[in-house]
Amino acid sequence: MKAYRELNREELLTLKEKLEKEYEKEKAKGLKLDMSRGKASVAQLDMEMDFLDVITSKSDVRTRSGVDCRNYGLLDGIEGAKCLLGDMIGVSKDMIIVFGNSSLNIMYDTVARCMLFGVLGSTPWCKLDKVKFLCPVPGYDRHFAITEQFGIEMINIPMTEDGPDMDLVEKYVNNDSAVKGIWCVPKYSNPQGYTYSDETVKRFAALKPAAADFRIFWDNAYSIHDLYEEGDELLDIFAECEKTGNIDMVYEFCSTSKVTFPGSGISAIAASKANLDSIKSIMTIQTIGPDKLNQLRHTRYFEDMNGLKAHMKKHAAIIRPKFEAVLEVLERELGGLGIGSWTNPKGGYFISFESMEGCAKAIVEKCKEAGVVLTGAGATYPYKKDPADSNIRIAPTFPSEEELAKATDLFVLCVKLASVEKLLSEAV
Amino acid sequence: MKAYRELNREELLTLKEKLEKEYEKEKAKGLKLDMSRGKASVAQLDMEMDFLDVITSKSDVRTRSGVDCRNYGLLDGIEGAKCLLGDMIGVSKDMIIVFGNSSLNIMYDTVARCMLFGVLGSTPWCKLDKVKFLCPVPGYDRHFAITEQFGIEMINIPMTEDGPDMDLVEKYVNNDSAVKGIWCVPKYSNPQGYTYSDETVKRFAALKPAAADFRIFWDNAYSIHDLYEEGDELLDIFAECEKTGNIDMVYEFCSTSKVTFPGSGISAIAASKANLDSIKSIMTIQTIGPDKLNQLRHTRYFEDMNGLKAHMKKHAAIIRPKFEAVLEVLERELGGLGIGSWTNPKGGYFISFESMEGCAKAIVEKCKEAGVVLTGAGATYPYKKDPADSNIRIAPTFPSEEELAKATDLFVLCVKLASVEKLLSEAV
Repeated sequence: MKAYRELNREELLTLKEKLEKEYEKEKAKGLKLDMSRGKASVAQLDMEMDFLDVITSKSDVRTRSGVDCRNYGLLDGIEGAKCLLGDMIGVSKDMIIVFGNSSLNIMYDTVARCMLFGVLGSTPWCKLDKVKFLCPVPGYDRHFAITEQFGIEMINIPMTEDGPDMDLVEKYVNNDSAVKGIWCVPKYSNPQGYTYSDETVKRFAALKPAAADFRIFWDNAYSIHDLYEEGDELLDIFAECEKTGNIDMVYEFCSTSKVTFPGSGISAIAASKANLDSIKSIMTIQTIGPDKLNQLRHTRYFEDMNGLKAHMKKHAAIIRPKFEAVLEVLERELGGLGIGSWTNPKGGYFISFESMEGCAKAIVEKCKEAGVVLTGAGATYPYKKDPADSNIRIAPTFPSEEELAKATDLFVLCVKLASVEKLLSEAV
Repeated sequence: MKAYRELNREELLTLKEKLEKEYEKEKAKGLKLDMSRGKASVAQLDMEMDFLDVITSKSDVRTRSGVDCRNYGLLDGIEGAKCLLGDMIGVSKDMIIVFGNSSLNIMYDTVARCMLFGVLGSTPWCKLDKVKFLCPVPGYDRHFAITEQFGIEMINIPMTEDGPDMDLVEKYVNNDSAVKGIWCVPKYSNPQGYTYSDETVKRFAALKPAAADFRIFWDNAYSIHDLYEEGDELLDIFAECEKTGNIDMVYEFCSTSKVTFPGSGISAIAASKANLDSIKSIMTIQTIGPDKLNQLRHTRYFEDMNGLKAHMKKHAAIIRPKFEAVLEVLERELGGLGIGSWTNPKGGYFISFESMEGCAKAIVEKCKEAGVVLTGAGATYPYKKDPADSNIRIAPTFPSEEELAKATDLFVLCVKLASVEKLLSEAV
């Protein structure tokens, strides 16, 4: 097949007619599929039902050190859960506070705390005229929604295969004291699946922020979510910050939302002692502490990092074929056409697709009309505004393989059709 | 025994010597007891261990309407949990959002939301020069800690057996637009165990706040926590507000923290549709939703209000003798001495003790020296400042009956000793 750009007007019109017929056929099938969110599939969840048997009436509900997990107390979590989540992201248990089921909630509350109380003695951000965050794009829509809700100005930073464009990051962070934060998904980034290179992590650690209350929001959501035996390796940012004297500059987040049950996991923030002390002094007024029985459940279910790794291999066995199924269709149907490119991640939950400029909305809309819901076009950019209207996030984990094949067939058809329409409109 | 005030100096000195000897003996026992917090006892928790068997690998993890409780989704909670918590406080399920394990956390976040985003379109409280809350005293220390952390000015409102002094409440709320809220524990108030009278509830509902964004923070923590067959009855404030057109004026809170396991319960806010819609529109950025499996556990464990009531009777059977043990010692040892008074609640988690003016700190300190920890004197007042230094909160639920007898014996001894010292110092 020739690249679409090389087709003349007549060829394009013929192609359009053919594609439209195929599209009408697809529409008639009445599909109802969802590739919009990074949700675990039922098969993944069914596989780990024994998680629910870990603590029963016959169990000891006390930790090794004797804490009764049923009762009040222990603001920062039980020791075992600190160790488990610390191991998961490669930091010491002493740098961890364990929370409830949502790292998103921790991130939100962390920004809210900065807004209301400042950072280690700085002016509360809500008292400042202007607060800015850097947003590597494409990125995670829920990050951007948080900063948007707080009225924080968001600045796009282009992503590369090595992570955010660090020249730009340094320019902003080191010179503009209104820049108070940056959203990062450093391993298997959402949506591209890129892992920050060692150099990128080192350059982050070596930042010299103009604002003393600048923080890196390091959302390490996919630290152990490898699809293949050989996964990407991410440098530990705290170890690097230790060397540069920047240990207070990072808030790291993680959770078991995509390890155990998405709605019933545990989550954590990792940070320096000064940051943790400050956070705890505020948190102690907010809550008496998270659900410790669920922490104990996680601790006992996995025991340690080996347990976690073995478990994630079972997940990978379910997820990998789904990624491969999508990638196979993309390659087979779109390879060489010059109307789209896509990432090929070794882990995480997403594939990122780049259409021709100005086609993403049309593709998503066409898919929706035919019964396949994708993440909204633009969602991967702050304010839902993708300047090139080209990025689409594909979330292959939730549908069954059969559904996925159908959905991806429809997707590539919509890409073709939107691209032809675009080329024809350009030619006018 | 004569009232202490009627003793002459010589009699007081003789008494002091005798009490000091007894106190030294008590100290020598090396007690280590805690009557400081409203914690459930181990016996209560052991009684409900079958709660942990409700959902296992063999269980259906879907709600009746088919929601998979393991996965993401359902920001405001599952239907069954809304019904259960709604029934618990007597409001419709449609007025409920279900949260995680801590109603304190909901209250904190609710104030934080008002600070950051205002109330139904009002100016965010953090942008105002002055925000004030009314605080019925004595009251719940953790309420006061929240408003203190947000820099909200707290105004003491004396409690009566019928609830807060409503003349004062009306005066402030109806005339001062800086007054944005009031903390209430309307049933079995913390620490006195008073239940607001029908008239008090009606007067609350009939308030005409100077500030459109004034809210009543109605912490209905002990709605089903009766100690006796016949419990206090609290009027439903929403029904009253419906009549007065004030339905948006109330945020009500509740939880199962003292129903199932304190650290692993579920909690809720109840509010009008306008309030709930506004809260949800902000919350949807904060989290994907609370732990639904734990909601399902609660729904299945109790089934309905009858299940809840039967369960709370078992709790009462454990707690009632503890309250009675404390009250018996207080009456036997302090009755007629004129050096203290105390409440006699029909439910809740606390007994409130009033010493002679200026003695509370000394009593708590003496208890501590001899190994019994009480809630800090002053804790029941904003800024930890009890103007009369007379209120002490007694929390009888956690210790065993045997420990409680020992602790209360020490307590009355310390009351006597501190009172004698006070009378002698006055006489000088």
